[in-house]
Amino acid sequence: MKKEFEKKQLVKKSENFSQWYIDVILKSGLADYAPVKGCQVIKPYGYGLWENIQRVLDEKFKEKGIKNAYFPLFIPEKFLKREKEHIKGFSPELAVVTIGGGEELKEKLVVRPTSETIIYEMYAKWIKSWRDLPLLINQWCNVVRWEMRPRLFLRTTEFLWQEAHTVHQTEEEALEMVKWALENYVNVYQDFFAIDGISGQKSESEKFPGAKTTQTFEILMPDGKALQGCTSHDLGQNFAQAFNLKFLDKDGKEKMPYQTCFGLSTRCLGALIMVHGDDQGLILPPKLAPIQIVIIPILPAQNLIQKAKELKNVLKEFRVEIDFTKEHSIGWKFNEWEIKGVPLRIELGQKELKEKKATLARRDTGQKISISLESLENEVKEILEAIQKNLLERSRKFLKENTKDVSDYRDFKEIMKKEKGFIKAFWCQNPKCEAKIKEETKATVRVLPFDAPEEKGKCIYCQETAEKKWIFGQAY
Amino acid sequence: MKKEFEKKQLVKKSENFSQWYIDVILKSGLADYAPVKGCQVIKPYGYGLWENIQRVLDEKFKEKGIKNAYFPLFIPEKFLKREKEHIKGFSPELAVVTIGGGEELKEKLVVRPTSETIIYEMYAKWIKSWRDLPLLINQWCNVVRWEMRPRLFLRTTEFLWQEAHTVHQTEEEALEMVKWALENYVNVYQDFFAIDGISGQKSESEKFPGAKTTQTFEILMPDGKALQGCTSHDLGQNFAQAFNLKFLDKDGKEKMPYQTCFGLSTRCLGALIMVHGDDQGLILPPKLAPIQIVIIPILPAQNLIQKAKELKNVLKEFRVEIDFTKEHSIGWKFNEWEIKGVPLRIELGQKELKEKKATLARRDTGQKISISLESLENEVKEILEAIQKNLLERSRKFLKENTKDVSDYRDFKEIMKKEKGFIKAFWCQNPKCEAKIKEETKATVRVLPFDAPEEKGKCIYCQETAEKKWIFGQAY
Repeated sequence: MKKEFEKKQLVKKSENFSQWYIDVILKSGLADYAPVKGCQVIKPYGYGLWENIQRVLDEKFKEKGIKNAYFPLFIPEKFLKREKEHIKGFSPELAVVTIGGGEELKEKLVVRPTSETIIYEMYAKWIKSWRDLPLLINQWCNVVRWEMRPRLFLRTTEFLWQEAHTVHQTEEEALEMVKWALENYVNVYQDFFAIDGISGQKSESEKFPGAKTTQTFEILMPDGKALQGCTSHDLGQNFAQAFNLKFLDKDGKEKMPYQTCFGLSTRCLGALIMVHGDDQGLILPPKLAPIQIVIIPILPAQNLIQKAKELKNVLKEFRVEIDFTKEHSIGWKFNEWEIKGVPLRIELGQKELKEKKATLARRDTGQKISISLESLENEVKEILEAIQKNLLERSRKFLKENTKDVSDYRDFKEIMKKEKGFIKAFWCQNPKCEAKIKEETKATVRVLPFDAPEEKGKCIYCQETAEKKWIFGQAY
Repeated sequence: MKKEFEKKQLVKKSENFSQWYIDVILKSGLADYAPVKGCQVIKPYGYGLWENIQRVLDEKFKEKGIKNAYFPLFIPEKFLKREKEHIKGFSPELAVVTIGGGEELKEKLVVRPTSETIIYEMYAKWIKSWRDLPLLINQWCNVVRWEMRPRLFLRTTEFLWQEAHTVHQTEEEALEMVKWALENYVNVYQDFFAIDGISGQKSESEKFPGAKTTQTFEILMPDGKALQGCTSHDLGQNFAQAFNLKFLDKDGKEKMPYQTCFGLSTRCLGALIMVHGDDQGLILPPKLAPIQIVIIPILPAQNLIQKAKELKNVLKEFRVEIDFTKEHSIGWKFNEWEIKGVPLRIELGQKELKEKKATLARRDTGQKISISLESLENEVKEILEAIQKNLLERSRKFLKENTKDVSDYRDFKEIMKKEKGFIKAFWCQNPKCEAKIKEETKATVRVLPFDAPEEKGKCIYCQETAEKKWIFGQAY
């Protein structure tokens, strides 16, 4: 038997999570390692997922009045230095162009790690009056941050993302945008990714370099580690100051505007893979799956192939593929489409055809359902919705079961050594405690949940008075 | 009067074409100069145009089975050197990263000027059998080619494009793809850009470095210069050889596949601007215009604004904007939207409202039409179609009038000194004649039209026997 016909084997998710992650990405065809250190190739199947995410977000941005634009890849080094926290945060990760057109450059050019500095240089030129505000721009692009410990999707030297940059007349309006942006991401995660998490505010030490505050959506991975799903930043007037952004307000006075930025990257695909997959491979939520349904004729018989085509036509509102291949056994095919995480499989055999039926197999539960072809369209729609719902419920359940309220630091350490997960605990907001906890348990402050009640308690580390419970976890 | 309320003034297209081009781009808000040498910022209005072009092309690619993927921005220098014509062609234009993560890199990384070498390295890994073919992948991305004489959209150090790279079992199939790709571009130019041109094959000296043959669509600009609208390349087995691409064919033999690539860049926006615009500004073809219709209430009266909103709702299948602003005079507004090239303006005054009418003003002809509001939707649809058609007809007429059949080299020189345009002339295909003509007239061989008949003639330069008439022109 030729090698290409062997069933692809995955390491079990339950046995070796970290190897499973790599295996499932490579074998499902989502991505591949690139021959450039730290970089990856996003293959068509993975890019199809990204395109579906882009479509959803882009539509929501446009409804909100945010328009796309494109700013240069290269940023003069001096721009980055204008906001001092910003350059401090990014300088160890930069890729620098020193040769252009065959000559040594007089001014080195940084490949954008993020675009605040080049965008705000332009904004300073464009914004003159209150009439120019709000300025709401988004950019879909590639960014580069040198990565020493690369990992497919999660940490790559180059990655794709959207970065929105907005400028407002008032602080109130800017804060409203920061809130909208985060809620929008949370909705997309819940409704499309079928992933729940905890949204809230970052600690001072974990916020974006140059921001006043950073909001995020923290997601818990099956190995108990936390992944930051997106960010929405209140930049206050920090960058406005650094880039000399001013506008003439209605009252005739010159004022400094307020800025926000928010972004989501291809890193989110890492979360999608990890959260839903199982020992058999990926499990993609129907709303994002590049292929929602695969139809497999059990035999390569002409009448079955013909029927498969008819069914594809009946199901034209869905993303459907037929597996026509003759070289592979049915077992091979089932295995292959399971690795790829296609939410629903339709099996079509002679017996079924005679009875005007088909067998539907759900990827999420493995459940097989025999249905009448007459009601196919409705059944399929309902089942896809049920899969989407089930995946979100699973994610919610996992999050709930693995978020623990802890008041004793010994328990905290024990949990972080073993099962990990999220820990909810009082923290006095002193960065020293934060640093000590990190040193001793590898856990960092992930987020202060928006819904955290005002309470009285003692810091999990120093026992000083604390007023809120924060979420701790080991970060990806 | 404040400066911001002054009408924007353009240099006249008919008087100073080259300055008009810059003026209209900056003042219509399509793009701006970036603070990085040779780079530009594509502003939302310009990016909206590019998004409409992307949507059209992307849909056609997907119908053809071409899928999107993403390959790294950085290419190891040694990859580029594998195909010797390729590196020779691109090396003077490269931007090179020599520092990464704070350290001098052992191997320099080139910022992609095009992605053949990195993509084919991956293809060699992915392609094993005839079952893996055809492999049809496209990438939307940014590329960098160092530009010494930058010009907005036409020549910028960084630009955006799509590059499709396909691999085929047979030469015949590859050639079919090269043909399809070019025809697809030509259709998009004619149907959406409303631009006609001449499609055909490039001469040996003008083809893509590493290609066997290059096909293109040459467009004539109003100043008589030629612009290459796109390219579709037959790569033969050149790159397959350089990158060791092999596959096991059905007959059990190991073979080398055939490759093609084809691309279209943001340069096409330069053509769009130049071809259609006039002294008043841009004229955008309705099918690509980010805003197809602007509704302008003649007075800031509440009932007019209300009616404008109603009309926008009636016209919801179109891209409509209402100009609500109170600060500007009607004259200012008309001028502003004319610069922006919005195809159709709807003027709404009290008198018209009373008569249940509106005045439509065509941007392409300046014609004003009073129509009944009842038939608005149909009228608008017809007028937008008429504008689209008229622009294409104008472009055809201009092309026809400025393509001259020339048999005397003195006439050739005279034309290239004065009005320029396309010249159709016999050429013996000797590169020496090509070089001499270029030296003496600045004209290069643009293309051998697909429909060029087999004829007998004498080379316009050396008088040797020639069999086909080629198109000559001064290139952008």
